[in-house]
Amino acid sequence: MQQEKITQTLKLLNELDIDCWMIVEKESEILSDPVIDFVLGTGLVWLSFLLFFKSGEKYAILGNLDKEKIDRMNIFDAVYPYMNSPREDLLGILKKHNPRQIALNYSSDSPTADGLTYGKYLSLIGLLKDSDFEKRFISSETLISKLRGRKSKEEISRIKKAIEVTLNIYSKISTHIKPGFSEKQVAAFIGQERENFGLQPSWEAEQCPSVFTGPQESGAHSGPTNKRLERGHVFNIDFGVIYEQYCSDLQRTWYILEENQQDPPPVVIQGFVTIVESIRRAFEALKPGVQGIEIDRIAREYITSKGYDEYPHALGHQVGRSSHDGGALLAPDWERYGKLPFIPLEAGQVFTIEPRLYLENHGVVTIEEMVLITPEGSEWLSDPQTEIYLIK
Amino acid sequence: MQQEKITQTLKLLNELDIDCWMIVEKESEILSDPVIDFVLGTGLVWLSFLLFFKSGEKYAILGNLDKEKIDRMNIFDAVYPYMNSPREDLLGILKKHNPRQIALNYSSDSPTADGLTYGKYLSLIGLLKDSDFEKRFISSETLISKLRGRKSKEEISRIKKAIEVTLNIYSKISTHIKPGFSEKQVAAFIGQERENFGLQPSWEAEQCPSVFTGPQESGAHSGPTNKRLERGHVFNIDFGVIYEQYCSDLQRTWYILEENQQDPPPVVIQGFVTIVESIRRAFEALKPGVQGIEIDRIAREYITSKGYDEYPHALGHQVGRSSHDGGALLAPDWERYGKLPFIPLEAGQVFTIEPRLYLENHGVVTIEEMVLITPEGSEWLSDPQTEIYLIK
Repeated sequence: MQQEKITQTLKLLNELDIDCWMIVEKESEILSDPVIDFVLGTGLVWLSFLLFFKSGEKYAILGNLDKEKIDRMNIFDAVYPYMNSPREDLLGILKKHNPRQIALNYSSDSPTADGLTYGKYLSLIGLLKDSDFEKRFISSETLISKLRGRKSKEEISRIKKAIEVTLNIYSKISTHIKPGFSEKQVAAFIGQERENFGLQPSWEAEQCPSVFTGPQESGAHSGPTNKRLERGHVFNIDFGVIYEQYCSDLQRTWYILEENQQDPPPVVIQGFVTIVESIRRAFEALKPGVQGIEIDRIAREYITSKGYDEYPHALGHQVGRSSHDGGALLAPDWERYGKLPFIPLEAGQVFTIEPRLYLENHGVVTIEEMVLITPEGSEWLSDPQTEIYLIK
Repeated sequence: MQQEKITQTLKLLNELDIDCWMIVEKESEILSDPVIDFVLGTGLVWLSFLLFFKSGEKYAILGNLDKEKIDRMNIFDAVYPYMNSPREDLLGILKKHNPRQIALNYSSDSPTADGLTYGKYLSLIGLLKDSDFEKRFISSETLISKLRGRKSKEEISRIKKAIEVTLNIYSKISTHIKPGFSEKQVAAFIGQERENFGLQPSWEAEQCPSVFTGPQESGAHSGPTNKRLERGHVFNIDFGVIYEQYCSDLQRTWYILEENQQDPPPVVIQGFVTIVESIRRAFEALKPGVQGIEIDRIAREYITSKGYDEYPHALGHQVGRSSHDGGALLAPDWERYGKLPFIPLEAGQVFTIEPRLYLENHGVVTIEEMVLITPEGSEWLSDPQTEIYLIK
């Protein structure tokens, strides 16, 4: 997998015509560049530089105590250990290769491409002073976005396993959860099921799952409370697991039937089918080359055309080793999303589609599916929810 | 604990005469500022700002979906949620309080104070354009160094528990490990013992423990190999556990007796007592106000005065929530350590003391103790190793 990603890196440098990509890492146990996992899979202690050149050469400059570990991995053409300062080796390699561009991991929009801290950036500037290499810095945002976004078969297969487990756990809710259970009890049930699979949650355990029931003010990033499931309310769960480093992120919605009620009231059905249809329309429009903003608009406008408020977030995000993976986003043109809604989609990317709407006396209706962009369009990774699940 | 750290933050702002400290956070699941654990203990999704003022006010500006979770924590005087952009709230708060300094988390020397990524820094600059707040930026390095360094009773007590478990596990080595065991087998034994305590390793599991046996080239940051423990060799282990978020980091050295040998040969004894004495001398000199470079020099010069090579690393580092905690360092004046060796030590800091030396035909002799700086001097947190442990 790591070898696969390094091969992909060298191809991308050629595709994007970037001469050099430099990762700057230090004390990984305290704060690690998110991309280190892909190309190295282990941490480094002292200020270190991993350099990948378009021409295919790969070098590491690192503290002497890290040398043997990295040597053993056989990734680099040469490993340069230092005791006092990395300056001489760094300048030596850069002068020899004389790259026109040096891509660094900084991005205001995409956290997955923003692993370079400001302190490490200042260290780098200090080491390169009296040279003009600083003028050649560019952001590696596009490179990392494609490296994380374009999934291999193996990556897709792991994501599918994570989805399978998540949907398996969801399938048990209707029989195990009863009116009167608290959100926390629902979360505890799911947490136990997850542990039975021996898997970690896709994001911090206190909010994975998130459970929301009934009318509320809650946002989507808060954890389950002591609020109880009441008849006549809708409730939804946002949850995912990590399978061999790869995440799922899925939401489902249930309705808690009143005594003697066979079906949800029309207002709930209406809300639910609106969400399903908005997802179907977004899904149909997904294909390489389209911008995320167009996809978001399709779902957003469909929902508001039915008289509901628009959802206060993006329609969908990428998923990979992180449940919120970086790069292109299915989002509106809001300042906080920067340029991410305008990046054309590519085959191999995995997205969530997760619109929602609010029903005054019932609660939040939301579904989150996961889809793969294919060369021709898109395909479902999750078996879509098409009917609201019922709790008796 | 978190309330304790927030109270300490406000005191430190007054002590250091810093008007405002601003933490910038985004997508914590991907990359989190290391200090977030101390003041918030949970993650944030959209670009967020946590502001602490010397006057005592505390504010959070964050994405609307994070609002409820943070509201519930009751830390801040006000929480400002946004949907489109945090600009207006951020400028509003800064204009109202008009701080002379705005401390940000960047540091070339100290990774624990370097949580601000370059991309987030650029976002911040963009949001503050048309104001002069950028000119008021200073590094929060000293603030964070003191916040992490000055341990409370509760923090010390957790570290002591982590040390107790580590020494307990070490005490089993002499009876359970035999000549012929591989480094990996020793590591597996320790890993199992650690799991019996239900604790996580202090750093990445593949190198925690590190196990080194016999003559070698290995550095201190590589993992255990298939190399086997041979009679006549010394071997050492570097290991620690995390107890309720707080780490231990300790090394011990063993000698594997030859058949019919009662004691190690004089050359091994000589190396071992040199390490013990260098630690004792460093320990005796530790007190508030002294610079780490002075302490490092005492141990380093003692070892070289006995004819051994100097150790190719620092004498000791702080320990806390990270096994390599930031700030003042017991280190020589090498470029890679920046100004850390010159920061005066303070009471409440926890340091390792970990010199080593190499014996040509036997291996690496090293001990790592943990000590607390007190108002008067220092005290041992770990029961020091004074005799080389023997394997029969």
